[in-house]
Amino acid sequence: MARLRTVAPVQAADVAAWDDESDVLVIGYGSAGASAALEARSHGADVLIIERASGPGGTSALSGGELYLGGGTAVQRDCGIEDSTEAMAAFLRAALGPGVDEDKLAAYCEGSVEHAAWLEQLGVPFRRGVYSEPSWMPPTDDGLMWLGERSWPFTEIAEPAPRGHRPATGHFGGWLLMDKLSAAAKASGAREAFDVYAERLVVADGRVTGVLARQYGETRAYRAARGVVLTTGGFVDDDEMLAQHAPRLLPMDKISCGGEDGSGIRMAQALGAAVLHMGAAQVGFHAVPAMMARGIVVNSRGQRFINEDTYPGRIGQAALFGQGMACWVVLDEQGYEEVEVKDRWGVLPHETADTVAELEKLMRLPDGSLQATVAEYNRHAANGEDPLCHKDSRWLRPLQAPFAAIDPTRSFRGPNDPPVGSGAAVFTLGGLHTAVDGGVRHVDGSAIPGLFAAGRASSGLAAWGYISGTSLGDATFFGREAGRAAATSDALSTQGRSA
Amino acid sequence: MARLRTVAPVQAADVAAWDDESDVLVIGYGSAGASAALEARSHGADVLIIERASGPGGTSALSGGELYLGGGTAVQRDCGIEDSTEAMAAFLRAALGPGVDEDKLAAYCEGSVEHAAWLEQLGVPFRRGVYSEPSWMPPTDDGLMWLGERSWPFTEIAEPAPRGHRPATGHFGGWLLMDKLSAAAKASGAREAFDVYAERLVVADGRVTGVLARQYGETRAYRAARGVVLTTGGFVDDDEMLAQHAPRLLPMDKISCGGEDGSGIRMAQALGAAVLHMGAAQVGFHAVPAMMARGIVVNSRGQRFINEDTYPGRIGQAALFGQGMACWVVLDEQGYEEVEVKDRWGVLPHETADTVAELEKLMRLPDGSLQATVAEYNRHAANGEDPLCHKDSRWLRPLQAPFAAIDPTRSFRGPNDPPVGSGAAVFTLGGLHTAVDGGVRHVDGSAIPGLFAAGRASSGLAAWGYISGTSLGDATFFGREAGRAAATSDALSTQGRSA
Repeated sequence: MARLRTVAPVQAADVAAWDDESDVLVIGYGSAGASAALEARSHGADVLIIERASGPGGTSALSGGELYLGGGTAVQRDCGIEDSTEAMAAFLRAALGPGVDEDKLAAYCEGSVEHAAWLEQLGVPFRRGVYSEPSWMPPTDDGLMWLGERSWPFTEIAEPAPRGHRPATGHFGGWLLMDKLSAAAKASGAREAFDVYAERLVVADGRVTGVLARQYGETRAYRAARGVVLTTGGFVDDDEMLAQHAPRLLPMDKISCGGEDGSGIRMAQALGAAVLHMGAAQVGFHAVPAMMARGIVVNSRGQRFINEDTYPGRIGQAALFGQGMACWVVLDEQGYEEVEVKDRWGVLPHETADTVAELEKLMRLPDGSLQATVAEYNRHAANGEDPLCHKDSRWLRPLQAPFAAIDPTRSFRGPNDPPVGSGAAVFTLGGLHTAVDGGVRHVDGSAIPGLFAAGRASSGLAAWGYISGTSLGDATFFGREAGRAAATSDALSTQGRSA
Repeated sequence: MARLRTVAPVQAADVAAWDDESDVLVIGYGSAGASAALEARSHGADVLIIERASGPGGTSALSGGELYLGGGTAVQRDCGIEDSTEAMAAFLRAALGPGVDEDKLAAYCEGSVEHAAWLEQLGVPFRRGVYSEPSWMPPTDDGLMWLGERSWPFTEIAEPAPRGHRPATGHFGGWLLMDKLSAAAKASGAREAFDVYAERLVVADGRVTGVLARQYGETRAYRAARGVVLTTGGFVDDDEMLAQHAPRLLPMDKISCGGEDGSGIRMAQALGAAVLHMGAAQVGFHAVPAMMARGIVVNSRGQRFINEDTYPGRIGQAALFGQGMACWVVLDEQGYEEVEVKDRWGVLPHETADTVAELEKLMRLPDGSLQATVAEYNRHAANGEDPLCHKDSRWLRPLQAPFAAIDPTRSFRGPNDPPVGSGAAVFTLGGLHTAVDGGVRHVDGSAIPGLFAAGRASSGLAAWGYISGTSLGDATFFGREAGRAAATSDALSTQGRSA
């Protein structure tokens, strides 16, 4: 039996006294919440951000920090990269679908150049430089990276351009993004309250007017005269919601600050809010993209199933949802050695052999399966072709002895971790149905008055596909939209403002 | 912008007058609704069934009629089939997951023998006889059919037994099942109202007390003193809900009576009801199972991806979700000829050739891909082995010229259909979160008082996997549970019973 988690709405008339009153109440202080607060402040609203942790950051601060931006940003122009809004939209439509929200896609791509400038004005540093290898996390501080744009089938769909914008840290950059966003939010005059966990929305006449929350064991009531913005994150930390919507994620490692419990999603659902694409997920495959591009990725039948030079999250989704994570990266010594030492993090070859037949045996693959795969791959690669999976010719050459096979379930493990892991780290993409302005939609399609959402509490740009940078990208972009829409909503009358 | 579809609940106090009052109000007259009505009547409740169509039937009446039952039913015993509750549960757990509801699974398997007897007592005829070939629809009137139980990996998980129970029609049997169920419901004294489309639930103090519906353009109010049972079907006919939850289904053919619009799901969501597994679907692959078992199924890379003798819906799910429906059935003349003529319905070979190389070219597969696949398949089949996909040795022999390839997107088409179709017919598996007794669950895990659901309006036995017969099986089984629970719920006070 499911444990009970009270998320049912409370009538405003039943709130004895308000502990705080603001125009816009932002719940959650990651990148979406900070962006919503900043934009609401810039429209003159009094803003309070409440956050369950003891400081700002959320999962955004623990992330790589990539923001998917393009269409000719200053960073792109300074690097000599040509790009267009149309090419960016065509790429994202193909990469993030099926199910992409065309209105959000258009708004995001058209507003991308301005949004990048907004981030730079806040002090987020994007060093001019392009990292050219496929990577989860370039070991340089280059401000631009490729995220699958040069791989099939996207090369047949849109003019490629690198659009992964990275804060200049040379490694995980999410903390720096959050540092700048939260400093700006604080400087803007947004008020902050920490260790506050929102539990139930407060409604009056069908409009959301506030929230009940817990702080240090006490219930607090927060009134919002213009709007409540939910930026409470996804639900990858809630095993019950995973079991209900995305059970394949249960055994996987989580990408999370620990607070992605779906509470904001459930609070809104209790008001009849619609949810979208709840089974979708990013799958951060535990393999080194530059190695995959130089080798092949095979399933438990020894078959290739995707072009290995594409965005590695696509490989991860195909591995988890299509192959049950039973996959190997097979490459040769030359391919392994070509990858910079500092980009080999977390990975060791698990099986090595002088012949493919021997490697196949060590991998316990069906007799002949890997041998047939490598023979066909090499035959075509010698001609610079890959008719099977369409890997770009840049990466094509026959594999030659000695060979190695890497098992992602035995990579990225620490010395004290169990010998076999899940093979990937995941987060959820499904969430509340929101309009372009962040307004939360009821299942009947109407707006729920006074309620907005952004970040992974909402279903954003990514529907069933994913590309790195579209989470922080849409969290900050549509966070701003939600902050603006909330700040410019009609205020409640002051009648009954304090009980 | 989404069209508005009013599903918001109505307060009972705002209902001026009730047009009808019953103990149990069943919304939808397919197999779940009829079963709920029957069981509620047997517990002495006054029952009204309202149905949007002009007669009973729903999608159940258009279906094949299979009911997945086992554990030693009379039909199984009379056919000399040994089975156990444990084997049935182990098979279904593996076949219907991930995400199977263990409580429902246990109740269903433990109650299966009794449920089969209940159906036979109602006059549903199951002829004693077992059809032994893999099939969507045996061309005989055998009462038992295999549904993947003898295929890998299930052979390693549970003792196989045929559990597909078929009403004796020799073809689609859903109409006969509905004929018996609806006749019994009528005979039991359940009242029926047709051309009535339920739109909004009526609530009082958080309990569901009735529904507002439309009949001939007029609004009607139906009061339910003990409970409302939603058996309104899934949402495969609603393109907006498909886009929101399962966009890959949008281009597919639909298995539906035309009324699977998700209205009941949305009405309950508007009260905060939880939904489960909304992206899941049955995929009725347009291919003849007995041909697939004798040949191989390959994707657009010429690779096999599943054992071809398994339940054909598993092949369909793998084809749609894993291969984008770009698949072929490849077989030889002997395999084609071995399939009974009357089991070849809807299928013609689309390419034929004397060599695999020639066939590969006609299929426009990557050079060498199908040749490598067939060579490996034949090499192992000669030894009665299939280390790649684990097809049962019963079906294994080397394929030999002449060869044929069948494209499911060009099968099952009528003379006036477009030359290329979707390749499969689908229906949705996701729906309302219900307890074993059919009680609809709120997102906080609590029961929504007065509200029950069964059939494809609910998430039933099947989570992300599917086996034929589990829809009619759980619709009738948990329909009965819901009818019983509603009938035995506390009645509303008669106060305010009529306005």
